[in-house]
Amino acid sequence: MNQTAQTDPTGNEPQGRPRAGTDLRTVRSNPDYWYPVAWSRELKAGKTIGTRYAGTPIALVRPEDGGSVFALEDRCAHRQVPLSKGVVNGSAVKCCYHGWAYGRSGRCIDVPYLGKGKLPNGVRTFPCREQSGMIFIFPGDPDKAETTPLPPALAQTANPGYKTRYFGRTVGCHYSFMHENLMDMNHQFMHSKQMGQMKPRFLGQKREAGLVEARYSFARTGGKQPIGEALIFGERRDASEKFQHRDVMTIRTEYPYQTLRIQKGDDDPVMDLWIVYVPQSADELTNRTFGLLSVKRPGVPFVLDLAWPFLVAFTNRIFAEDREIVELEQKAWRELGGDHNVEVFPVINALRDLLVECGLPPAQPDA
Amino acid sequence: MNQTAQTDPTGNEPQGRPRAGTDLRTVRSNPDYWYPVAWSRELKAGKTIGTRYAGTPIALVRPEDGGSVFALEDRCAHRQVPLSKGVVNGSAVKCCYHGWAYGRSGRCIDVPYLGKGKLPNGVRTFPCREQSGMIFIFPGDPDKAETTPLPPALAQTANPGYKTRYFGRTVGCHYSFMHENLMDMNHQFMHSKQMGQMKPRFLGQKREAGLVEARYSFARTGGKQPIGEALIFGERRDASEKFQHRDVMTIRTEYPYQTLRIQKGDDDPVMDLWIVYVPQSADELTNRTFGLLSVKRPGVPFVLDLAWPFLVAFTNRIFAEDREIVELEQKAWRELGGDHNVEVFPVINALRDLLVECGLPPAQPDA
Amino acid sequence: MNQTAQTDPTGNEPQGRPRAGTDLRTVRSNPDYWYPVAWSRELKAGKTIGTRYAGTPIALVRPEDGGSVFALEDRCAHRQVPLSKGVVNGSAVKCCYHGWAYGRSGRCIDVPYLGKGKLPNGVRTFPCREQSGMIFIFPGDPDKAETTPLPPALAQTANPGYKTRYFGRTVGCHYSFMHENLMDMNHQFMHSKQMGQMKPRFLGQKREAGLVEARYSFARTGGKQPIGEALIFGERRDASEKFQHRDVMTIRTEYPYQTLRIQKGDDDPVMDLWIVYVPQSADELTNRTFGLLSVKRPGVPFVLDLAWPFLVAFTNRIFAEDREIVELEQKAWRELGGDHNVEVFPVINALRDLLVECGLPPAQPDA
Repeated sequence: MNQTAQTDPTGNEPQGRPRAGTDLRTVRSNPDYWYPVAWSRELKAGKTIGTRYAGTPIALVRPEDGGSVFALEDRCAHRQVPLSKGVVNGSAVKCCYHGWAYGRSGRCIDVPYLGKGKLPNGVRTFPCREQSGMIFIFPGDPDKAETTPLPPALAQTANPGYKTRYFGRTVGCHYSFMHENLMDMNHQFMHSKQMGQMKPRFLGQKREAGLVEARYSFARTGGKQPIGEALIFGERRDASEKFQHRDVMTIRTEYPYQTLRIQKGDDDPVMDLWIVYVPQSADELTNRTFGLLSVKRPGVPFVLDLAWPFLVAFTNRIFAEDREIVELEQKAWRELGGDHNVEVFPVINALRDLLVECGLPPAQPDA
Repeated sequence: MNQTAQTDPTGNEPQGRPRAGTDLRTVRSNPDYWYPVAWSRELKAGKTIGTRYAGTPIALVRPEDGGSVFALEDRCAHRQVPLSKGVVNGSAVKCCYHGWAYGRSGRCIDVPYLGKGKLPNGVRTFPCREQSGMIFIFPGDPDKAETTPLPPALAQTANPGYKTRYFGRTVGCHYSFMHENLMDMNHQFMHSKQMGQMKPRFLGQKREAGLVEARYSFARTGGKQPIGEALIFGERRDASEKFQHRDVMTIRTEYPYQTLRIQKGDDDPVMDLWIVYVPQSADELTNRTFGLLSVKRPGVPFVLDLAWPFLVAFTNRIFAEDREIVELEQKAWRELGGDHNVEVFPVINALRDLLVECGLPPAQPDA
Repeated sequence: MNQTAQTDPTGNEPQGRPRAGTDLRTVRSNPDYWYPVAWSRELKAGKTIGTRYAGTPIALVRPEDGGSVFALEDRCAHRQVPLSKGVVNGSAVKCCYHGWAYGRSGRCIDVPYLGKGKLPNGVRTFPCREQSGMIFIFPGDPDKAETTPLPPALAQTANPGYKTRYFGRTVGCHYSFMHENLMDMNHQFMHSKQMGQMKPRFLGQKREAGLVEARYSFARTGGKQPIGEALIFGERRDASEKFQHRDVMTIRTEYPYQTLRIQKGDDDPVMDLWIVYVPQSADELTNRTFGLLSVKRPGVPFVLDLAWPFLVAFTNRIFAEDREIVELEQKAWRELGGDHNVEVFPVINALRDLLVECGLPPAQPDA
């Protein structure tokens, strides 16, 4: 592959081009990163739940005794049925079918009808970590887990000056469509029913190893400011000149995560989003979204808390529109048998290059 | 292929034969004809809707200014999402996602965030025509559209002496099953719950270039005349001799359309049906039916209008039985991996030959 | 294949092993046996119903005149639509579509619009027999039907000292999972919510041509005896010593059928189950279960009849758990692309060998 990052700050190039080489929608996500696979609140002490990463079933187990969560391949070594259908006993999980038991190490530690000296092999384990209300696993090479960083604070979850929404859903498309959707703010056109007419101005981009960033400002050209937006900005705005192009929105894909921040001048962001799209099926054409949306609290206490349902409903409507369109993109890809995207926006081409470079090549058909 | 038209007027041949050569259910419909893809009433001014022909998605656009409908391939050149999800502005359609705009010519005439001098390529267009309450496109070679006739009046839609039912539905089978179903009137056996026992007599057939025709008369051998039939014939009939074999039913496939007319003597038809089966999926194993059923008005005004709901209910029951059986034929074809039809009725073999000759050979697997 | 029957009575072997050679889940059931395909009560006189064996559709016809049921391939020779949608006339069945008629021999005996001298070929027939409330067919070589035995009494259906439940359902898995599920009583662990904790003791096994048998006794280690079990044993039992390991449960696969009997001492069984898993789809990855569950009547008359609904509800809950787990096994097989069962229990390995030996090798892809 011969892929060069686009750095033309005008945001324009003469004519769109289909990307040569690998079809981006067949690029597999790189497993050598930490990926959330469940919300912490989903898993009570003494319970197990089943989840997925790119077709691999994963059982998460939270011991009865308050020990940390651990992650096993979610197939009993005996008959491959999900261990997450089983029973947690102390810090071990027993398969629901014939009672084979496994500990944190994945070793089989008991088969009720077999002597202890001749136990069969166990199951695969995954490094596991809990942070910011999510349970993460490291699906790749376990030796890299320790040295692979995961920022200790995601969005502003650790900052009392913010209120955070934890949201997620399963979306029927390759994760790359999600990254493109969020970074290309020209798609504000699609949200005009929710947002009114917003004209984006592209301010520039940054391309570094493992990272692409786009910056925008906006002008309202029609419609009224929605309440949801007023809550985020902490103020009512009309269409007058003084509010035009006043804030900077920075969207960054720092592989494999994505962030979106809105800043008024040099202040702390008024909104800070952290989001990741975790492949579900083996073909990676579905993903589960884990998002943290932190909104800065205004001076008056509890205002944001009282208004929160409006903000939730507003963002849900936006997400529903985004979800519909990326699923339509995926459907077109299936019907056409490949990626026919003709991209004219350089920062999106830079993002596409990044996702190809950081991901894994398509699986071989006979693999 | 070595296929000869059958012209034996007795309607019988010694032993059924499976057809040599091409499997009829894999023959693609010939795109060099006009096909209806929507009802006129489905598309309001200033709106766009999505439809299909044999796997090709089509956006129909009716301009705001009262201009004629036009048809584009229903995939934005940018990200292949349906243009029919977009917004009509004057006589252009804007993609719902990033606002790329296309005119009647299919050219891309605006990308909101790109200079006018460097617009990307547009999308494919289809010749489009509106007639008899339907919107037709010409999916094949556009140069042939002008010289390919479409009769100006279909069924008796232009004749005030008739009332016409416009009906349609999607049926899960290859269009050839539909043609065979209607032309083989021995299948009256299937409708005996609705129609009573009707014994068909085959009167003869005609085979010309692009055309097969079958003629029948009928005798009632049991059951009562249904109200629906009485409405069509404009008279109550018992099972007495004088009504036996009195009328002639003529069924014609004039590729790709089909008609069915019932005549008492030399009068105008009491019923005149025009129907076509438009392939929906790329494998053409589903079709959308567009039918015009014209019934002659009796001498007394409004009688037919008042009784119309009975006629609608009656024909719906007939259609439901036909639909079930052709979908069972398609299911058997799938399970058996091919066409095992053993046809003993010469006119149906002639029809099968016609559909193979006029259609396109099966798509190559690697095409 | 090099498969040896396991006869180690301890029930243990050092380490589980994946089975070499054929994947058991691709072994086709042997058609040279009698298989039930319907309950007698499903088919009234003068009616026909459609059923299946391993992808082959079968029409069962019960003549109007009280003659015995017969079985035809459920595809009209003409257009392959199901004969079971047709009409029974005397002892013939007429296809619903164009009225072609077939007799018990499968010959086409009438085409209403064709001379009698030139009738087309008919359809395949299957030897058919009715017994113990079920309609059986012999899907294999018809010449073997006469000499292939089917025990005249199944379970205790012919014994007035027992009451029999006739039950069945479709389960989404290969029949081999069903045999393994029933024979491996270590899976009592899965039913502990319904049954309380029951510890099985393996007493030994038998391996003969076409037969594998396992014997167990049980001790209650926790929980209360469920009412359903008390009904079967005809007595209330606590967890005291005198009830531990008192009865013998014998589970036998006598290809292709399975039985389970519970005996107190040398008495007649208190429970006698006969069950078979009939493949439905052509890939045999679904089956329809036909089961006869005979329970010995206690001394007091009508007690069992009054309590029957409890027993039905109890067994339904057990079956639901079994069904869920075998379908999860099948799901894992699909996802992993093959059988990864690591079996440590010798009698189950003997059973697996039996099913491979008695079944048919996998169909060739191009067959």
